[in-house]
Amino acid sequence: MNIVEGGIIAPKGFKAGGKFIGLKKARKDLAILVSDAPCSLAAVFTTNKVKAAPVLWNHDIYKNYSTIRGLVVNSGNANSCTGKKGAEDAQTMAQTMAKLMNVNEKEILVASTGVIGIPMPIEKIVKGIRELLPEVDNDILSGVHAAEAIMTTDTMMKTISVKVEIGGKEVHIGGMAKGSGMIHPNMATMLSFITTDVNIDKGLFRDSLKEITQDTYNMITVDGDTSTNDMVMAMANGMAENPKINEKNQDYEVFYEAFLYVNKYLAQSIVKDGEGASKFIEANVTGAKSKDDAKAVVKSILTSNLVKTAMFGEDANWGRVICAAGYSGADFDPDKSTLYFMSGGEKILLTEKGLPVDFDENKAFHILKNNEIQILLELNEGEYSATGWGCDLSYEYVKINGEYRS
Amino acid sequence: MNIVEGGIIAPKGFKAGGKFIGLKKARKDLAILVSDAPCSLAAVFTTNKVKAAPVLWNHDIYKNYSTIRGLVVNSGNANSCTGKKGAEDAQTMAQTMAKLMNVNEKEILVASTGVIGIPMPIEKIVKGIRELLPEVDNDILSGVHAAEAIMTTDTMMKTISVKVEIGGKEVHIGGMAKGSGMIHPNMATMLSFITTDVNIDKGLFRDSLKEITQDTYNMITVDGDTSTNDMVMAMANGMAENPKINEKNQDYEVFYEAFLYVNKYLAQSIVKDGEGASKFIEANVTGAKSKDDAKAVVKSILTSNLVKTAMFGEDANWGRVICAAGYSGADFDPDKSTLYFMSGGEKILLTEKGLPVDFDENKAFHILKNNEIQILLELNEGEYSATGWGCDLSYEYVKINGEYRS
Repeated sequence: MNIVEGGIIAPKGFKAGGKFIGLKKARKDLAILVSDAPCSLAAVFTTNKVKAAPVLWNHDIYKNYSTIRGLVVNSGNANSCTGKKGAEDAQTMAQTMAKLMNVNEKEILVASTGVIGIPMPIEKIVKGIRELLPEVDNDILSGVHAAEAIMTTDTMMKTISVKVEIGGKEVHIGGMAKGSGMIHPNMATMLSFITTDVNIDKGLFRDSLKEITQDTYNMITVDGDTSTNDMVMAMANGMAENPKINEKNQDYEVFYEAFLYVNKYLAQSIVKDGEGASKFIEANVTGAKSKDDAKAVVKSILTSNLVKTAMFGEDANWGRVICAAGYSGADFDPDKSTLYFMSGGEKILLTEKGLPVDFDENKAFHILKNNEIQILLELNEGEYSATGWGCDLSYEYVKINGEYRS
Repeated sequence: MNIVEGGIIAPKGFKAGGKFIGLKKARKDLAILVSDAPCSLAAVFTTNKVKAAPVLWNHDIYKNYSTIRGLVVNSGNANSCTGKKGAEDAQTMAQTMAKLMNVNEKEILVASTGVIGIPMPIEKIVKGIRELLPEVDNDILSGVHAAEAIMTTDTMMKTISVKVEIGGKEVHIGGMAKGSGMIHPNMATMLSFITTDVNIDKGLFRDSLKEITQDTYNMITVDGDTSTNDMVMAMANGMAENPKINEKNQDYEVFYEAFLYVNKYLAQSIVKDGEGASKFIEANVTGAKSKDDAKAVVKSILTSNLVKTAMFGEDANWGRVICAAGYSGADFDPDKSTLYFMSGGEKILLTEKGLPVDFDENKAFHILKNNEIQILLELNEGEYSATGWGCDLSYEYVKINGEYRS
């Protein structure tokens, strides 16, 4: 597998663009992505009971229609809690694209991100789509513009693309994502769009995304909140012309590894850009009695405000990690557990079989000084393990979220 | 029901005291409570898998022994994650008290609160018990000293006492509590001790505390963390000499209301003293399909860092409330819900049947300026409602918890 340039336009037949159309104050706020050939859609949607209008639009397509030709995304307004008008606006966005492309409106996906509960300035968006669509292109800059246009409180663009060989053909996978607050296991205010030119059976494509989501997007947390707008949508147009992948053979494995890499990279980028985050935290839990137990402990540690503030304070307050594991709901005997903190190749043992060891505070401080920290908790109960990613809780988080709307 | 002075020493036959013995830097850190007559014990313990040594000691008493004569509490060290020595230290604390009082060691309850994973300086505590026990008294100051001695990051003492008449006799209930961080539904780093001179059947007494806990301590949240040391323990010595309450009759109702009042007061005091909290938030959810649904929505709203920071920022960002309700797991149709913010007798409608209304931002700001804010979410789905209490998330919370151990 090789990392290549281009992001979402790296795969054959995809074009993109991004533009400022006046939804945000100054930065780009409309992105368009189109494919020359019809695409299969794989997707995962928010589990929040409150679903934004575009989520409902795409979900209907996912369930009832078969091919995709394009995607339109706006930032600056989430089109959530907007009722009947919101649903009409989402449809209008798809219709506008479809008419210009001479395809069916149900071949166009829609996404919105930003403030909740404000009616969409739909005329601006319709005008924007008409202006931007003729400008979409497959050069690197066009991919960058699209990735910029989906950002909200993000401080950095999140984009990646890779290349693998399958059946003698070059297959590409590209992706872009946004999200830095309201991020939590089970899909968060997070949009992730993946393009690929792989030729693959739709059912296999969908299954692979579902499986990958469990170990990537659903294992990250910034603040424990799960948003109304989250989606991961992946489009495969088959233009790599590899022999069609119809079963879980070696070709599938090659594709799966690359697809996992792209999604994991994007999921981790979101956490690294967590609102106000100064540290990236990886939690590994091993030796659990079940996969669910391992994941529950990982999420409990990463979600704990007390663990997060200790990391911010660079304080080896291991008791908070043990405590968070204890209330995770997982079945384990605390007296068998062993805890380490790690970073930059260094490792420090903090507790062994449930008891604190006499550790070197200077070494611990040195490890916690790093920007990327790993927490390793060995439960010594069974065979299962899990990994997740989170960040610290800083003054800056409070500042960003205390003042977001105003 | 009348509010009276005295806290835990208000009921007949209870004596208390508090003293500085060198576990904390300067403030009082040892409390003792004794009863002239043997007491029935009602209690609720932490659900955390990691249980501190005193929790295990008391739990054994609760299960296997019948009467209580006293309680010893230290702050400054939690005696948690301290293994076999921790268990021995908890026993030593009980033994020391028991020997001096000439009672059985299993008649003495033990509690510890403070840092996790540091061995107890048990000699200091034994010496402290020997010095403090002869000094316990039933004057108001002794009750105050005890309530002070159980505090850790608390900024205010939490104590209350009330008087009711049952069967022509004066019955008292008093309580003291500590806790301001690591507070979450399902028992948190929170200690609450209740004394009463009521004469009541032990089974009824225990059932009433369990029921009350569901609607008080289990409905408060500061930071979503549930600690290893939480306990609510209530002691009834029967010295009011009211006709024994053996069934859920009118006498029981009178007692129950007063018992609920004391526990709710203490639970709310803990939230009002939430680490770094600048606002006290009450969430009311009505019209849920079940009690569990109503509680799930209340807890989800109060636990959301995004709701908490919006309250800190005095920002009427109602979308975050709706969003938190949406991911609570409760079964409801967002398009039927109606949301209000209230404070100081004023009320503002924010969304109706799932749609935002055009509200007066100045009025909303005026309401959010208050220190006590009420969030009312009407689900319009069924008959059930729930209420819970939380606080905002401030810079100060991050500061306190980023620097606690050092």
